[in-house]
Amino acid sequence: MRVLAFLDGTLGDPSQPYVRVDNTGVLRGDGIFETVLVVDGKPRELGPHLDRLAKSAAMLDLPEPDLELWEQAAQQVIDNWEGSSEIAVKLVATRGSEGDPDAEPFGYALGMEIDEKVKRARTEGIGVVTLDRGFGPDVAERAPWLLLGAKTLSYAVNLAALREAGRRGADDVIFTATDGSVLEGPTSTVLVAKGRTLYTPPPTVGILPGTTQRSVFRAAEAAGWTVKMEPVPGGELAMADGVFLASSVRKVTRVHTLDGVALADSTAVHAELCEAYEAQYA
Amino acid sequence: MRVLAFLDGTLGDPSQPYVRVDNTGVLRGDGIFETVLVVDGKPRELGPHLDRLAKSAAMLDLPEPDLELWEQAAQQVIDNWEGSSEIAVKLVATRGSEGDPDAEPFGYALGMEIDEKVKRARTEGIGVVTLDRGFGPDVAERAPWLLLGAKTLSYAVNLAALREAGRRGADDVIFTATDGSVLEGPTSTVLVAKGRTLYTPPPTVGILPGTTQRSVFRAAEAAGWTVKMEPVPGGELAMADGVFLASSVRKVTRVHTLDGVALADSTAVHAELCEAYEAQYA
Repeated sequence: MRVLAFLDGTLGDPSQPYVRVDNTGVLRGDGIFETVLVVDGKPRELGPHLDRLAKSAAMLDLPEPDLELWEQAAQQVIDNWEGSSEIAVKLVATRGSEGDPDAEPFGYALGMEIDEKVKRARTEGIGVVTLDRGFGPDVAERAPWLLLGAKTLSYAVNLAALREAGRRGADDVIFTATDGSVLEGPTSTVLVAKGRTLYTPPPTVGILPGTTQRSVFRAAEAAGWTVKMEPVPGGELAMADGVFLASSVRKVTRVHTLDGVALADSTAVHAELCEAYEAQYA
Repeated sequence: MRVLAFLDGTLGDPSQPYVRVDNTGVLRGDGIFETVLVVDGKPRELGPHLDRLAKSAAMLDLPEPDLELWEQAAQQVIDNWEGSSEIAVKLVATRGSEGDPDAEPFGYALGMEIDEKVKRARTEGIGVVTLDRGFGPDVAERAPWLLLGAKTLSYAVNLAALREAGRRGADDVIFTATDGSVLEGPTSTVLVAKGRTLYTPPPTVGILPGTTQRSVFRAAEAAGWTVKMEPVPGGELAMADGVFLASSVRKVTRVHTLDGVALADSTAVHAELCEAYEAQYA
């Protein structure tokens, strides 16, 4: 099922059209979004998601979002949901009609079922390929107009990378920088376990700060892990005790195969991290 | 005014919504487009535009577009236009509703007025800044999943670059590769004149093959120019006899200022190229 709520508090019918053909979201991918996981009626990390929405808006010179209205729209979706116990709530904001200087930003919250494939991957793990993102790890700070670190609606490259993974018989992608260092997944953050230390690359390399990564780090630290946000050379992946992709809807998903080669068995590490992550929301 | 036509031959009301909130065009910038210039009822370079639409579709693994239907939709817009003598007709195709395996691609042709600022720039020229695109000139062939050379709806970076130009007091942008070589504008192709030779970078450096660039090259060659498609070092811009941005709606627009420094007066070269370009459509 799908539930649609607007920022003015009204509900919509997701099978009906609401977007004009001249909306910059359609014509230009010119807008921002977040995907919030809701479990048993409770949204996870809503605050960090809303903060990131505001940060993305600033990076795109969009008007500052009224976070209270966005929170209410998300709650509207939750209150009217009659589907499974988990919802992926997308928060989507576009600039409005192209060429209209008085265009009002257009936004909505859309509750969607989580793909069965995504749920299955949480327990079964996934095969991943590394793909060159074409950027050096120093470009984000030098060239803010590239919007690295903003969660924009311009995801065509991310989807093309996922299709390339499919062609190579894999489920997902880890993007690497031109120096071979680890960046992020097209829709996820990369976590690497070595002994009792958990690593993830810093946002300064040109990636999105991960809301789920932050939550897992917090939980792991409380469980006695050391957590480090620092550049991860690509070669570390094959030698790690565990490689994981983290995102709202996939939670912590274990990578069992990298570029066609089986990684070390990380089921125990994975179970421990998942337990720590889930315990925060119990 | 705006005129909207669908691929089934019907007309729409552009002030009404036709796009669902779960359309991948909105949620992911996952689609393709073209902008065709129509002057006095005659579309320019429609064949090359349609060919490029088909090429973009292939790069995004979209179904092959029925070019005859697209041509008819463009003609519908032209037949129902009651605005100025020039129309920018956008052809837009998206993958359809996200998560729906039976989703039908969604497409339309939208006729729009050409911005006065764009028309003015054709005669007055523009100031341009160079901005780093973050890619090396060799990445496109190595990493086709980056979709360099496809005209996708994911244009957030292109728009952000144009806003950056505005902040720097300029009108437009020339993207450069990490080695400083010339790539393209966010919505245009770069042409450089030196003596009686016209240069433009080849698509292999990771840029869109320009329909207007091709038309101008054809016209210039017929007028006795030598035309060369080869890498253009960034340093060549300041030393050129003329730098121009070419695209459907801006035709050939003269760059008078680069990164705040006045370029050589290219009004005579510009007038000659414009005359040759226009003569093809007389």
